[in-house]
Amino acid sequence: MNAEALLRFANDAFYQAFRDRELAAMERLWAQRLPLLCAHPGARPLYERAAVLESWNQILGRPSCPVLEHRIESILRYGALALITGYEWSRAQPDGILLATNGFMEEDGQYRMVLHQAGPVRAVTMTRAPDPRVPIH
Amino acid sequence: MNAEALLRFANDAFYQAFRDRELAAMERLWAQRLPLLCAHPGARPLYERAAVLESWNQILGRPSCPVLEHRIESILRYGALALITGYEWSRAQPDGILLATNGFMEEDGQYRMVLHQAGPVRAVTMTRAPDPRVPIH
Repeated sequence: MNAEALLRFANDAFYQAFRDRELAAMERLWAQRLPLLCAHPGARPLYERAAVLESWNQILGRPSCPVLEHRIESILRYGALALITGYEWSRAQPDGILLATNGFMEEDGQYRMVLHQAGPVRAVTMTRAPDPRVPIH
Repeated sequence: MNAEALLRFANDAFYQAFRDRELAAMERLWAQRLPLLCAHPGARPLYERAAVLESWNQILGRPSCPVLEHRIESILRYGALALITGYEWSRAQPDGILLATNGFMEEDGQYRMVLHQAGPVRAVTMTRAPDPRVPIH
């Protein structure tokens, strides 16, 4: 796979882990030694790996944990870091859209997650077609 | 100045431009050729330089443009990209706190802004002391 395919694969693995409520997959995905930043909607950011994984443990363990859909809007490259920005929503609440930026960087030969920052977006519903895909830089 | 001081200087320049409502300073700050991502609270992200600057033109031109305070919470480095995450609030509304991540990368020998993503944070007021500064990686 080329770099873009590997990045999409890592990003897909994140949303798959979310859908499957699989903490072990989250543990494999988040980087072991790189700096981390995880800002859930409305929450203070988390930086320590244990705190990040504990937050996912809590989210994935809730009965109300949403089944998230995801649509990539852009993939941007800044040197070794790649940022994938997209929309997240649940079919149960198609108006409650979040914008999320996920960051990936290679560690031990794999793209690992280092960044997740999500927050609500107004005036977007997923019944509306997305903007054309932004070219990948 | 060392790299950290230069980064703080660039981040300060962003908030100074905001406070002074100085679009020309924003134009100097945002990178000319690097990929850009600017996600204002609740809004769809912007990627094109002209669109990013037009959004700042509109924000800075509003009579209701807030006088923002800013407190850095973390500075993380991912290769050539540095992310400064902090809280933004106005004294008029100390409970309306935003979490903002600003990204900087060198272009033409200067740190230029390439990323701004901001959204509301609950349960934080700036009357409460911030968490201890996260070590800079």
